Amino acid sequence: MNIDMIRAADARLAGQKRITPLLNAPLLDQRLGRKLLVKAECLQLTGSFKFRGGFSAVSALDAATRERGVIAFSSGNHAQGVALAAAMHGAPAVIVMPSDAPQMKIDNTRAYGAEVVLYDRPGGESREDVGNRLTAERGMTLIKPYDEPQVIAGQGTVGLEIAVQAAEHGVDEGDVLVCCGGGGLTSGIALALAADAPGLRARPCEPEGFDDVARSLETGTIQTNDRLSGSICDAIITPAPGDLTFPIMAALCGPGLAVSEDQVLRAMALAWQHLKIVVEPGGAAALAAAMFHGDAIQGEAVIAVATGGNVDRAMFSRALATLDS
Amino acid sequence: MNIDMIRAADARLAGQKRITPLLNAPLLDQRLGRKLLVKAECLQLTGSFKFRGGFSAVSALDAATRERGVIAFSSGNHAQGVALAAAMHGAPAVIVMPSDAPQMKIDNTRAYGAEVVLYDRPGGESREDVGNRLTAERGMTLIKPYDEPQVIAGQGTVGLEIAVQAAEHGVDEGDVLVCCGGGGLTSGIALALAADAPGLRARPCEPEGFDDVARSLETGTIQTNDRLSGSICDAIITPAPGDLTFPIMAALCGPGLAVSEDQVLRAMALAWQHLKIVVEPGGAAALAAAMFHGDAIQGEAVIAVATGGNVDRAMFSRALATLDS
Repeated sequence: MNIDMIRAADARLAGQKRITPLLNAPLLDQRLGRKLLVKAECLQLTGSFKFRGGFSAVSALDAATRERGVIAFSSGNHAQGVALAAAMHGAPAVIVMPSDAPQMKIDNTRAYGAEVVLYDRPGGESREDVGNRLTAERGMTLIKPYDEPQVIAGQGTVGLEIAVQAAEHGVDEGDVLVCCGGGGLTSGIALALAADAPGLRARPCEPEGFDDVARSLETGTIQTNDRLSGSICDAIITPAPGDLTFPIMAALCGPGLAVSEDQVLRAMALAWQHLKIVVEPGGAAALAAAMFHGDAIQGEAVIAVATGGNVDRAMFSRALATLDS
Repeated sequence: MNIDMIRAADARLAGQKRITPLLNAPLLDQRLGRKLLVKAECLQLTGSFKFRGGFSAVSALDAATRERGVIAFSSGNHAQGVALAAAMHGAPAVIVMPSDAPQMKIDNTRAYGAEVVLYDRPGGESREDVGNRLTAERGMTLIKPYDEPQVIAGQGTVGLEIAVQAAEHGVDEGDVLVCCGGGGLTSGIALALAADAPGLRARPCEPEGFDDVARSLETGTIQTNDRLSGSICDAIITPAPGDLTFPIMAALCGPGLAVSEDQVLRAMALAWQHLKIVVEPGGAAALAAAMFHGDAIQGEAVIAVATGGNVDRAMFSRALATLDS
């Protein structure tokens, strides 16, 4: 895993990904007492940065392998990212989802052209059975959500863009806060910044109670989460940092930050109010850290990545309701 | 009024304005049956394109005039655009607002550093009195909201960006739908497109019952609106097209389109769902036309300008509620 792989992914993504804007709002800066720059990856195709990693991985396959198709296990942003990436290559995609996945996510994934296979239906196959069958019968390639070099390379293109855009804002040192699940995005950004903007330092942001990456960085060994449900930040809840992503984060990242659910909801509301972007809970952890943990952040400017915007209406209304209090 | 003024405004705005993204969403394209590109000016500084015109006008003043300051009559997006533009030049700004303006708009305008003067308070001055006094006593310059060459030039920079970005998407012909009040943005975009993308044609979009520009274009003479209140699209309700803007629109624009309030609210909801942007009612008229008046639009691709995102929570909730039906 190295910067050349990220630059190669960036070349493959050129003209396909959206170069998302680095937003700011003077009234938010006043409120925070420092300049806040927000990398709006919620504006990426499919509504999250996951499109980059999916496209990078699909485009890196040789043509014969790609024609046999790709598989992903996901009911979330990775599903949509891989589905659209495969469609853009004319390659078949099977997205394997739990049978209780929300109908809208199933519908969206199908609308991007993917075949959706449900597992854990009564009397049906397990997730592993489905994966093994598709690999054996159809020769499909599994695209893992984060612990996969070409996925990390794709996510790292966010870091290349941040390096250029931060310089345009006159910012060349400070913390880059990243919503962190398994660490694919955080490690990719860390590698890109080390190469192109060494004064900027990536820091993972997680929900309180699910801060496996922060604890792993603190102790120097991979730590796990006690539970994998019960957070509104579903997009970034993973068992533990990856075997590939953790060493990169350990070498390059600053300490992790943990945010409360209330802070996440407030950050979503402030992003709506001041930046005019729609952010999902798991995509707002870094914003929440920038807004409510300012004393743990260095420098006159801070950059936060808003990683996704795929949120349902009820949750969004909950976030906006925090503006009353 | 000519393209050179727009290019000069663009040079003054370089590094100051945000080059807003031209967004698209494959699932929206499927729904519409054509490619939809959305120029997200709600992501502009101050949450609307009005910053461009304000900055263009303030920056075009000679230094001595600018130091005496600028005035604007507005409780809306023009107020915030002029206030921030003046602050960025270190120039004083007075924004004259009706005494019943919402407190949040007053607060925001003050937060951008402007002095807010209220008129029509019991026993107080009229709007004209306030303007005349500030002009006489302090030598301040009035920045009109649309019928002012340097304001049109600033808004026209949106058109320069569209020409470049549409070409990147492979789109060089079709309709460019623009939310239209007095016509500053529409005429500026029309001039820019005529120069840089002659296959693209600007078309004004207005709320039903307030379609003075559409009727003026149809009859060839300036028509007025019967009333100036009672629309949720407050940002684009004006008495009539301007003396400067109308001839430009008459020469260069395609026919106007009128949209219902329900269509505007649905367009806001679809923008939230698929594009992850926050659009105000007056900023969603063009999107609504693209989405619900497809039979009146030419071509395989259509471009809509989402002009602003300054909306209160109650109205936004009303928009999202349309997703249920």
